[in-house]
Amino acid sequence: MSEILFLSTGLLSGLLSVFVALYIYRIVMKSDEGSDRMKEVSSLIEKGANSFIKVQYRILGIFTITLAVLIALVFRDLGIPIAISYILGSLASMAAGYIGLVVATKANRRTAAAAVSGGLNPAFKVAFRAGSVMGLMIAGIALVGLTSLYWLWNIILPDSTFIVIPREAGLWEILTGFSFGASTVALFAKAGGGIFTKTADLSADLVGKIEYRIPEDDPRNPAAIADAVGDNVGDVAGTGADIYDSNVAAILAAAILGAGIDLHFSPPVPFALLPLMIAALGTLASVLGVFMVRPKEGHDPGPMLNRGTYITTLLFAILVVTIILILGLNYVIAIVAIIGLIAGVFIGFTSDVFTSERGFAGFKPVSKMVDSADKSAANLILSGYAYGLLSVLPSVLGIAVAMVISYTLGAGLGFGEWEGGIYCVAIAAVGLLSTNGMIMSSDAYGPIVDNARGIIEQAQAPKEAIVACDKLDASGNTAKAITKGFAIGASSLSVLALFAAFIEATDTLNIPGISGLVVVNIAHPSVLAGALMGSLVPVVFSAILILGVERNSERMIEEIRRQFREDPGILEGTSTPDYDKCIEIATSGAIRELMPGTLLAIIVTIATGVILGLQALAGFLGGAVLSGLIMALLMGNAGGAWDNTKKIIESPEYTTYEEGTEDWHRVHDISVTGDMVGDPFKDTAGPSINTLLVVISLTATLFLPVIAQLHLWFIGLF
Amino acid sequence: MSEILFLSTGLLSGLLSVFVALYIYRIVMKSDEGSDRMKEVSSLIEKGANSFIKVQYRILGIFTITLAVLIALVFRDLGIPIAISYILGSLASMAAGYIGLVVATKANRRTAAAAVSGGLNPAFKVAFRAGSVMGLMIAGIALVGLTSLYWLWNIILPDSTFIVIPREAGLWEILTGFSFGASTVALFAKAGGGIFTKTADLSADLVGKIEYRIPEDDPRNPAAIADAVGDNVGDVAGTGADIYDSNVAAILAAAILGAGIDLHFSPPVPFALLPLMIAALGTLASVLGVFMVRPKEGHDPGPMLNRGTYITTLLFAILVVTIILILGLNYVIAIVAIIGLIAGVFIGFTSDVFTSERGFAGFKPVSKMVDSADKSAANLILSGYAYGLLSVLPSVLGIAVAMVISYTLGAGLGFGEWEGGIYCVAIAAVGLLSTNGMIMSSDAYGPIVDNARGIIEQAQAPKEAIVACDKLDASGNTAKAITKGFAIGASSLSVLALFAAFIEATDTLNIPGISGLVVVNIAHPSVLAGALMGSLVPVVFSAILILGVERNSERMIEEIRRQFREDPGILEGTSTPDYDKCIEIATSGAIRELMPGTLLAIIVTIATGVILGLQALAGFLGGAVLSGLIMALLMGNAGGAWDNTKKIIESPEYTTYEEGTEDWHRVHDISVTGDMVGDPFKDTAGPSINTLLVVISLTATLFLPVIAQLHLWFIGLF
Repeated sequence: MSEILFLSTGLLSGLLSVFVALYIYRIVMKSDEGSDRMKEVSSLIEKGANSFIKVQYRILGIFTITLAVLIALVFRDLGIPIAISYILGSLASMAAGYIGLVVATKANRRTAAAAVSGGLNPAFKVAFRAGSVMGLMIAGIALVGLTSLYWLWNIILPDSTFIVIPREAGLWEILTGFSFGASTVALFAKAGGGIFTKTADLSADLVGKIEYRIPEDDPRNPAAIADAVGDNVGDVAGTGADIYDSNVAAILAAAILGAGIDLHFSPPVPFALLPLMIAALGTLASVLGVFMVRPKEGHDPGPMLNRGTYITTLLFAILVVTIILILGLNYVIAIVAIIGLIAGVFIGFTSDVFTSERGFAGFKPVSKMVDSADKSAANLILSGYAYGLLSVLPSVLGIAVAMVISYTLGAGLGFGEWEGGIYCVAIAAVGLLSTNGMIMSSDAYGPIVDNARGIIEQAQAPKEAIVACDKLDASGNTAKAITKGFAIGASSLSVLALFAAFIEATDTLNIPGISGLVVVNIAHPSVLAGALMGSLVPVVFSAILILGVERNSERMIEEIRRQFREDPGILEGTSTPDYDKCIEIATSGAIRELMPGTLLAIIVTIATGVILGLQALAGFLGGAVLSGLIMALLMGNAGGAWDNTKKIIESPEYTTYEEGTEDWHRVHDISVTGDMVGDPFKDTAGPSINTLLVVISLTATLFLPVIAQLHLWFIGLF
Repeated sequence: MSEILFLSTGLLSGLLSVFVALYIYRIVMKSDEGSDRMKEVSSLIEKGANSFIKVQYRILGIFTITLAVLIALVFRDLGIPIAISYILGSLASMAAGYIGLVVATKANRRTAAAAVSGGLNPAFKVAFRAGSVMGLMIAGIALVGLTSLYWLWNIILPDSTFIVIPREAGLWEILTGFSFGASTVALFAKAGGGIFTKTADLSADLVGKIEYRIPEDDPRNPAAIADAVGDNVGDVAGTGADIYDSNVAAILAAAILGAGIDLHFSPPVPFALLPLMIAALGTLASVLGVFMVRPKEGHDPGPMLNRGTYITTLLFAILVVTIILILGLNYVIAIVAIIGLIAGVFIGFTSDVFTSERGFAGFKPVSKMVDSADKSAANLILSGYAYGLLSVLPSVLGIAVAMVISYTLGAGLGFGEWEGGIYCVAIAAVGLLSTNGMIMSSDAYGPIVDNARGIIEQAQAPKEAIVACDKLDASGNTAKAITKGFAIGASSLSVLALFAAFIEATDTLNIPGISGLVVVNIAHPSVLAGALMGSLVPVVFSAILILGVERNSERMIEEIRRQFREDPGILEGTSTPDYDKCIEIATSGAIRELMPGTLLAIIVTIATGVILGLQALAGFLGGAVLSGLIMALLMGNAGGAWDNTKKIIESPEYTTYEEGTEDWHRVHDISVTGDMVGDPFKDTAGPSINTLLVVISLTATLFLPVIAQLHLWFIGLF
């Protein structure tokens, strides 16, 4: 009974979310598209984004099909279902990213037009609606995908399919394929998009702002369109894919752990399916929350955005408590879901403290950094890096506290200390991500406004419209900072849950010679060696991405300098620069640079398990989480702080030096250097680590039966 | 029998090393002191160094006495012996640092004089001899301290003193106090010296090189003397203390693990004392090796330096194999000691690849960074950071492989898999550090030459002498790079051994309600929470140190600019700058900034154990090692690479732009920015992490009985 109830609630709320997204999409499309020049600029961006996505999806297609065939072969009994789930997971993730990109590239000119004709509020409406298409779409697709696939496989597959794994655990093993597909695509989207966007941004800033002193988004800059394309492929599609894959992974981890409880304890409802129900409630709250964001005439839209988030959160809390009590379950489960949500908001809040001018109480890192910028570029880099390191502290503590509390509460549920405790840690992750529809809506709005601003600048539309966009951008800042921290918190709790799910999965394996991991003894050198290797993965991956951006930007910098040099008409505004060349460089570089890192991560994970065994593989995952969290937070927050340091120096509130004077230019150039260093930190390497951690955790869980058998074969060699 | 043999060998070779050091000191003192101007500059440096060390040792004295009283009180039975050992450990460490500093500050003018009068080889002789005083002194003091204290306590203390711990384990618990004293002093020396030296370096470079374009070490720069003082207090005294404390800790960890084996298996010789024997052999080899470094007329002294290291290494290998076979022990023990040494050299070699122009095969990171410097400061920072991240890979792999091999070999010794395995990991650490006398001799030589160069520049002596110093400096580069990696490898293997020693120590505890840690289950959230907290320690500590340098340098930059502004005669060379003011700023800042971090590390370690328990405390240590290794290698190597990028651009081999042209200045300024960012990375935060890890590991081991009892009291509260 409750099985069908949970599945149908999940499916229906997912479908509702998708349909509402499509409905809002139609509304957005009806807005005015603006002047011809705006349409022209926007279509350049649209074309650029499409050409990038076409190249990327072609590569992804080849990758997915190859891997699917491999999966079908190595898994034998479950091979075909897992391979199909994997392909569907990849396709769903690609579809979500694509839809977000289409909306964003079509909404930018409409937002620009609204800003020109109506000002602040109409522009806000268009941009936020467009963002919510992305937000509701990813929340909906995750639910529809997971519930329908579970239902389908449960009906189709006969019991005889499940040989090495019991049926319920086996069904979730199959769905791990779906999650794995979502994550690998997300990693490509995030890392590839991140390399693209930062190559363009860095190069445009260096040659444009520093060398030729032309303003941001100036149409004379050959990299201007590539920069705008980057905002879409990196910030919209990339972030969407990142949150989407964390969400799927959190639900999956909780389901695997729930299946373990179901197997041994038969709780009052199927604990494996309960996470779908909780996610469904969060999605319903998001759908309602999106409609609560209605800017009032004459009011700043910023608080409206936050209001939407607060209402969604509150609504979710009420819904989850009510439903858990109606189902006759222990209220602890509702509490931990809410604890997860609070942890996410807390981490977002601390990110904001370290990256915004406001700071907290007397502690104002960014203001200090503005002072450092007055000394030298080295001082600015050092203080940003040091504050980035410091910012790791509250977030990691927040995650540790949320984990320990959830575990302690869950340990008392009566399903065994570990089983109950760790299930509740996973539920906290599901709770954190439940409102991802709303969170993503407020986040995607930012890059759309950014793009609109660029279009207005390039279409040489009235200055007031640019001011309106800057205001919109600023009022979205808190929401953006919260999303950054939220994404990191979400993925880390999900990864901790996946870590537990991996251990649970070893326990349900039925392979002679392989026993479950009751304990992972870090005091044993092979586990410690595994942990050391795991800690290297985020580090090396970051290095590859940053070097990728750096190498790529060298090529683009050469190209921009060449265009300026060879055609002086570009700077005078008499001839059009060759935008396509820059887009081409960014695209080919991004695709070339992201493949080795991704493959490396998957291969090293499997190799560690095969050579050192399952205990060491668990150590590997643990080590990766520890170093990954540090790297992601350090780079995300340091990058954000450098970005805002530059923004403060560019803003009218900055009064140390008068704008345009020699001193102002010195400090501004230094702040641009900081921002350029921070760009690949915060938008390429940092956020990709979230997804990377999910990918390696899922690799370990999905390939577990294969790894276990290969390890037996490997140690048999000696 | 072999007990007395081991102890007396340790004691005698330690004494030999100390006496040889004193003998060489007398020889160095007999060299010519140079012109009056040289003596004058040198005495300014000497005075500055002494005033810093006086302030630092006063603070350290207060700290040590307070902590000793606390220790005497909380430990009851063993309180007095531990407190006394702790005080002696601190004093020994201070003495070692002080002697190194005295020699270095007296040898710099003598090296300068030799360079002026005799050129390359005589200058090399003076500098290397002075360095070897430091090297042999720290190796000797470690042996004398540990052996004599063990002997003494073994005679003095009645059996009735050992209540909660068996006698042999108890004796080593007492000696943990000695090691703890050595490490806390080392942390102050390294971190305090590091803040001092980089405050001066960064400020002198920024105002001198970039703003006023005067050369390095120019006497017109008010920070010139502070900069030279910094080389002595940071690079000589600091590095010496760092290697010294790793050495003591490695021997101690192996002894604790050996005591565990002795207790349960009665092996053919006392395994607890064997590490002293191995260290003694390494020290003997170092004494001989130092005398093998004799530069030939007309030959580059660089290869000589390496020859000394090779001979020492080979000699040690022969000695250890011979003695182990004579003692009738399994040859495996000799092999793992040599494996440790090889791991150290390998890590040193990879550091060299990432930080020197040479690179390895076609892989030349520093050359790439020179290209990046041509693009922009941001490109240079990004590529240096990314290569720094990448450099973590081979070193950590090297450590993991050395650990797994040593463990596997030791597991077959017949003393239980874990006991034998982990003992051999500790022996590998002892082996790595055994030749520290020679390694340190080649390292201390570098800063002495650096100082001599500064003195020559400031005494306006002939240009040829500066060229000779630059050559000497360059030929010491390989040795220096090897020492950097060696120090990190040494401390990480030592810390891994200490980690095991901590777990072993929990097993010998005899407190009702506390059981030994057979396993440390990272899959349990409290252990994972401990690991997360541990991983924060190196991160936050680095942040504190870098912010300390940054804050401090802001004050000094202001001061230098003020002096130039208020007295134009300084730049014209007609009036002398106020050097003391800069030394004062560096001193007071260093002392102020280093205290909070050190106390924090000790307190957080104890608090984690008390609140979350011993398992979580083990997780804490594990987490700290993982993140500490990454941070130390990243910062050390990135900093070294930026430093060398600048050196290449300043060298005659750099041919992209002609020196002095606008383009050259642009690229050079960028490279100086990179170097300035790298300075606190490689000389303050990075190397301090080594010592930090040792301090927290020793804190956990030393305070274990107290922590265990407080934890019982704490959980009793609920």
